[in-house]
Amino acid sequence: MAQKPSVPKGTRDFSPVEMSRRQYIFDTVKSVFRTYGFAPLETPAMENLSTLLGKYGDEGDKLLFKILNSGEYGANLSQEELRNASKICEKGLRYDLTVPFARYVVQHRDEISFPFKRFQIQPVWRADRPQKGRYREFYQCDVDVIGSRSLLNEVELVQIVDAVFAKLGIRTVLKMNNRKILYGIAEAIGHADKMIDITVAIDKLEKIGLDNVKAELLGRGLDEEAVSQLQPILELEGTNSQKLDKLAEVISSSEEGLKGIDEMRTIFSMIEALGVALPVELDLSLARGLNYYTGAIFEVKALDYAIGSICGGGRYDNLTGIFGLPDVSGVGISFGADRIYDVMTGLELFPESVDCSTQVLFMNFGEAEQMASLRIISELRKAGIAAEIYPESAKMKKQMEYANRRQIPYVVIIGSQELDEGVATVKNMRSGEQQQVAFDKVAAVICE
Amino acid sequence: MAQKPSVPKGTRDFSPVEMSRRQYIFDTVKSVFRTYGFAPLETPAMENLSTLLGKYGDEGDKLLFKILNSGEYGANLSQEELRNASKICEKGLRYDLTVPFARYVVQHRDEISFPFKRFQIQPVWRADRPQKGRYREFYQCDVDVIGSRSLLNEVELVQIVDAVFAKLGIRTVLKMNNRKILYGIAEAIGHADKMIDITVAIDKLEKIGLDNVKAELLGRGLDEEAVSQLQPILELEGTNSQKLDKLAEVISSSEEGLKGIDEMRTIFSMIEALGVALPVELDLSLARGLNYYTGAIFEVKALDYAIGSICGGGRYDNLTGIFGLPDVSGVGISFGADRIYDVMTGLELFPESVDCSTQVLFMNFGEAEQMASLRIISELRKAGIAAEIYPESAKMKKQMEYANRRQIPYVVIIGSQELDEGVATVKNMRSGEQQQVAFDKVAAVICE
Repeated sequence: MAQKPSVPKGTRDFSPVEMSRRQYIFDTVKSVFRTYGFAPLETPAMENLSTLLGKYGDEGDKLLFKILNSGEYGANLSQEELRNASKICEKGLRYDLTVPFARYVVQHRDEISFPFKRFQIQPVWRADRPQKGRYREFYQCDVDVIGSRSLLNEVELVQIVDAVFAKLGIRTVLKMNNRKILYGIAEAIGHADKMIDITVAIDKLEKIGLDNVKAELLGRGLDEEAVSQLQPILELEGTNSQKLDKLAEVISSSEEGLKGIDEMRTIFSMIEALGVALPVELDLSLARGLNYYTGAIFEVKALDYAIGSICGGGRYDNLTGIFGLPDVSGVGISFGADRIYDVMTGLELFPESVDCSTQVLFMNFGEAEQMASLRIISELRKAGIAAEIYPESAKMKKQMEYANRRQIPYVVIIGSQELDEGVATVKNMRSGEQQQVAFDKVAAVICE
Repeated sequence: MAQKPSVPKGTRDFSPVEMSRRQYIFDTVKSVFRTYGFAPLETPAMENLSTLLGKYGDEGDKLLFKILNSGEYGANLSQEELRNASKICEKGLRYDLTVPFARYVVQHRDEISFPFKRFQIQPVWRADRPQKGRYREFYQCDVDVIGSRSLLNEVELVQIVDAVFAKLGIRTVLKMNNRKILYGIAEAIGHADKMIDITVAIDKLEKIGLDNVKAELLGRGLDEEAVSQLQPILELEGTNSQKLDKLAEVISSSEEGLKGIDEMRTIFSMIEALGVALPVELDLSLARGLNYYTGAIFEVKALDYAIGSICGGGRYDNLTGIFGLPDVSGVGISFGADRIYDVMTGLELFPESVDCSTQVLFMNFGEAEQMASLRIISELRKAGIAAEIYPESAKMKKQMEYANRRQIPYVVIIGSQELDEGVATVKNMRSGEQQQVAFDKVAAVICE
């Protein structure tokens, strides 16, 4: 026999059970997005390379999957032309959902009514080295508001995070930071140019301790005075508002920094007034996406399962600038479907019902019995019950095995005897108990 | 400003309204598939070229989108190696859902419990010349049963077609044919090798008339006797069973042909016994997919909108043979989402509710009013009502325009006066009528 076929490395098939579970996650997320007024959007899998190149840094450019121009296969090209692939590839696969979204907004800006609230759930492709938990094809699940600077948008995103993980049953903590505050800290201690270094150092506080952080900061070119000014920030404690009050003193010299503090005060107070279930913490070490976020930064971690962040995002003030449309501010978050899947599998949070696609299987004992079964099945299906009949009158054992492997909770038996008596035997596959009911009572038993 | 960005030719963005309508179609189809016990499956967008090449004929191979190997861009390769692209591309984009499904079944045959009933709704990519109604990226929506030769599967697919188009409100006719009958006709008149020619000629009957068809058949190498034997077949009339009876006489010499007739008799009689709403017609001119279908062939046409077939499929006896797993029979159909979309748009069959993502917009008149609104909104969302508030306290006119452009049916106004009186003004944007209600009665008004 020919060699067993396979999928490209870093890609996956999703079996019916995996699909049902993934669909459960996506449906839950979507249902929340919709109640907040976000509308669905989809963009093509391929974009022009001119749209993608230069948007993700040199590393990102290398990780783009490029699509060979149809027809010509690079014949008659110089090695140089081949090396940069520009002549043989004009299209590439979507690397994330953000750049295509920015492209969409610019391209369709005359049709869009701003503020534009959209969600987008589609796969993206990256030529990363595949490894555990990292794939070359994976879904992103983004929700963004574009065209509004109101902090209410940040607050609604926090509410969305709260609602989604409550529905999924995952206990989480939401960490928040603000790019303006981080800049303010750096500016206040006279090292505006060292914002990244300082944030990275603060990030290590828990791991390596205060003294080592100080040493590292000196190593990264900060002077003694700056480091001592930083000290109180490294020792911040208390509630979010206490932290913010303390911060306001320390970085009072930075206008930008104070602006960031005001933003966070507004956000936290609204969240408190509206009330959310998950804890929301100011975390100055949170630095994700620091190179493009300009305001609030979000990150969500699961409390009962170690897997890193399962959701994150922030405010970006110039998303569409890269396509020539300046001053359009947006804020958004992205849910990590694969990690959420792993968390829910690890903690066994998927409802049992998600795994059984078919609720009842009718055994097949031949033509007459089959026809009687099909009439009942039609009624069940009209009532929205997923029902099937084994397509052949195979051995009972074989048909039962099929029901078991498919985890079908009910089996209905209509043999010649049942047919004569006009009754069906309904077997509950979990409890094993059987009962005989009239044909028109089968639905009632299964819906019990 | 930079040049307006665009998408690659033959690809599309799907705006929120388009997405909601497409989602309505997919959700309807899925809900029917599920009640028949079909489970969802997804495969990667990219497959190894070894999986795809040679499965769609030379034309198909040319239309595959090939993905450049990451890292190396074909440098240091001979023109010959480049011409066949084998060295620089090992992966290609999915061309349809059938071959990846066959690959999946062979690869996972030990985990699958047969008969395997799956549906798959994913985009496919073809480097066709783009033209009206033909795209380079489009969704396919396939439902197949594999591992069962029972004709009950054909019958259930007919029921599925009936249920789907009834739910969508599209009046359709289902045409059926059988590869075995077409072969039987050719065999019976002594031209087994001319099955295709004969079918093509029969297909032209309506357009060019009996005499011209005869002339064409002679032109295609049939002798006078064969053509005269064919005459009664060209003049078949009456019900499906009358046609089949007549056929049985004419092609009685072909065992294969009689087998096909028996199959169709069984299928039609079961359909009749179970009862379906849509007309099901035997149509000997139906020849789609004749090169791989081995039994029943299906095609669905809309009755009230001219657009060609909107759904089709058939029985294939050796799908997985191409991957070394012989003798696995399957039958399936594919729904043409894009054409169904066009039919429903043309006939205005989409429910109004599909187009409005948000049911109610709260005007924003400042902090205090906003906070009162947000409390009500939280309750509405908990009740599953899609509600949003304009994020800034912008000019009333601007906020109303936003509600109109988004086609939001209800607007709620809580200004300073309403706030004092503890009432909200609810405006029905369609009728224009307004009413004042207590905060906790807003939901009731909107759900009326």
